[in-house]
Amino acid sequence: MDAIDKLSTLFTRFPGIGPRQAHRFVHFLLRSSPTLRRELAGAIAELAANVKQCPTCQKFHDGGKAECALCTNTHRDPSLLMIVANDSDIAAVESSGTFSGYYFVLGTTLSLSSDKQQDLRESRLNQTVTKHAAGGLTEIILALPANPEGDATADHIRSVLTPFADKNNITITMLGRGLSTGSELEYADPDTIKNAYKNRG
Amino acid sequence: MDAIDKLSTLFTRFPGIGPRQAHRFVHFLLRSSPTLRRELAGAIAELAANVKQCPTCQKFHDGGKAECALCTNTHRDPSLLMIVANDSDIAAVESSGTFSGYYFVLGTTLSLSSDKQQDLRESRLNQTVTKHAAGGLTEIILALPANPEGDATADHIRSVLTPFADKNNITITMLGRGLSTGSELEYADPDTIKNAYKNRG
Amino acid sequence: MDAIDKLSTLFTRFPGIGPRQAHRFVHFLLRSSPTLRRELAGAIAELAANVKQCPTCQKFHDGGKAECALCTNTHRDPSLLMIVANDSDIAAVESSGTFSGYYFVLGTTLSLSSDKQQDLRESRLNQTVTKHAAGGLTEIILALPANPEGDATADHIRSVLTPFADKNNITITMLGRGLSTGSELEYADPDTIKNAYKNRG
Amino acid sequence: MDAIDKLSTLFTRFPGIGPRQAHRFVHFLLRSSPTLRRELAGAIAELAANVKQCPTCQKFHDGGKAECALCTNTHRDPSLLMIVANDSDIAAVESSGTFSGYYFVLGTTLSLSSDKQQDLRESRLNQTVTKHAAGGLTEIILALPANPEGDATADHIRSVLTPFADKNNITITMLGRGLSTGSELEYADPDTIKNAYKNRG
Repeated sequence: MDAIDKLSTLFTRFPGIGPRQAHRFVHFLLRSSPTLRRELAGAIAELAANVKQCPTCQKFHDGGKAECALCTNTHRDPSLLMIVANDSDIAAVESSGTFSGYYFVLGTTLSLSSDKQQDLRESRLNQTVTKHAAGGLTEIILALPANPEGDATADHIRSVLTPFADKNNITITMLGRGLSTGSELEYADPDTIKNAYKNRG
Repeated sequence: MDAIDKLSTLFTRFPGIGPRQAHRFVHFLLRSSPTLRRELAGAIAELAANVKQCPTCQKFHDGGKAECALCTNTHRDPSLLMIVANDSDIAAVESSGTFSGYYFVLGTTLSLSSDKQQDLRESRLNQTVTKHAAGGLTEIILALPANPEGDATADHIRSVLTPFADKNNITITMLGRGLSTGSELEYADPDTIKNAYKNRG
Repeated sequence: MDAIDKLSTLFTRFPGIGPRQAHRFVHFLLRSSPTLRRELAGAIAELAANVKQCPTCQKFHDGGKAECALCTNTHRDPSLLMIVANDSDIAAVESSGTFSGYYFVLGTTLSLSSDKQQDLRESRLNQTVTKHAAGGLTEIILALPANPEGDATADHIRSVLTPFADKNNITITMLGRGLSTGSELEYADPDTIKNAYKNRG
Repeated sequence: MDAIDKLSTLFTRFPGIGPRQAHRFVHFLLRSSPTLRRELAGAIAELAANVKQCPTCQKFHDGGKAECALCTNTHRDPSLLMIVANDSDIAAVESSGTFSGYYFVLGTTLSLSSDKQQDLRESRLNQTVTKHAAGGLTEIILALPANPEGDATADHIRSVLTPFADKNNITITMLGRGLSTGSELEYADPDTIKNAYKNRG
């Protein structure tokens, strides 16, 4: 395989990138300056060297310390821990300005279509929950996608955490379901209406 | 204006229909059987004769009685009244199988862009609420769109109903906000995250 | 079936209209003025009375005469006859300002998926071509869709007309194929590239 | 700027990639194996080393010789030269199986919105045309996008090549315009109808 095809093929492994766009990426790079290509190759090669995974929340970061900036921030609320699926969920929650506790990132959700055992970082989760329990944790919020995979993951994590939570008086909650911004009843699915009705107030 | 253009122009007043589709409607009718055209013209002409507005919930219907089938159904729960914007919202809520009380249809929501006074059927609403209060009403659910117009309408209706509700021990609630089915945190807007967090449980 | 459902069902027979939009049409009419409903019903009922089909080109029109305004326009070029699939194609060609001859409307194209014999108005076509031949016709342009149905229709009409055309020194042509406005080679299908290459000049 | 943000920013320079997708690329790489990252960085870094630009047609390639496989293929038709905007146009034309001559790649089209002088590789073009003229070239086909930029580029290239072409009895043609596959008259733009009519046959 030639160099253009080889790089094209690597780009098709990127999320959401098909053969045509992969090909356009390669031609973009061919027409770019050597400096850009060098910078890009360098940034990719050194990504692992510069980025570490926070041992507490499992988020990727490149701060100077082992723990990330959120986990080392002592001004956050130690009574709250939010469990999310992906790093990018943290950015979304932070930008809503609504939550001031700590996070834990599962890294994925359970797959309902494959039998492959998925790694939800459970032993790390247990360590992190234990650590936060010592710091005054009173509520764990499961903030997972409102879809079947998210629900299966929430069920599983809840069953994993319940014994410890019960012993330590920690409540396990889930993000509320209902009408999301912009929803109209006429176009809402029955499940959303059911949840919106149940969670009325 | 000729007959084709005249009918075309009338069809452009239909919701979501532009000149090109209006034109296709007319050509469809030209190629259709005289029977279809006669049936259609008849159904439109007699719509008002056959369809009445339920004096209680304001829904359009063509049952034999003045009141609609829902309002005359004595098996529904008299303690609950849901206020919706449009007739079609009733069908959506009914198909979710989650609500067994009665309805009232405002017919529209307040417009935020125009100064035009919108008719929310308030005097009818007062009569209907009074009637249901006599039947044991304890909760009014505002089931309006989760958008600024829906919120303004909810605020207005709440202020209209509060004095009567307070006097008669009727609670006024709203449909819950949060993640709708299929939502992922990463793509949710800050407002939805805020509501989902507030309504966690 | 009640009046609302009956009218809804009639609207679902309109091209491109599903149950939900049909329902919205009915509610739009319910909220409209009696005048609008009366006008609409009248316009539909009288469509057939006011609109006739031009005996020469087969277009629907409502001029005072039996023949349409185009066919009675003596300033058009009698040497050219364009055969199109639908009435709306005439409007498109006229708005391009490129053609000054006369038209004939087949009313449809051959269907490739059904065995149902389709009526391409062939006996009318023969009469119209004979009439124009007497007026100096030298070229018949097949202006049919650039898809398999259009091609099958063109082949069929060409075989129907060829004997007469040969005898009367009438050329039969087809609209040119190639890159349509806005096309880029990279995204063009092989057939379009083939035609664009063949028709280069 | 940290390593994640730096790589994200580099990815936003890729064609069609916004901040969110750039971020997803970085997280994809973080979760990928070190092998993939190493391969990718290597392929990008060595792209320029392995890929050369064919001195004759200007296409990027990584064959063993300076010239690309197409330009060194002596079985192609030396009487034809097609001028295209981009490397990917060659793949599209080749897959149509319709053209057997040689190519020249301008690399871009003239921009109508910016005053920036665009490099259409004109001195290379002159050399390549001279070379093919010695080999029996009789026709140059301008195969540029059917849009204003493509037309301006075609006009410019034609004026550049005409003196040489006239002297050497080389015809300059353009890809044909008309209905592209799938077009229906009703939805075609006036310009396409005009071209389809002009190029009828």
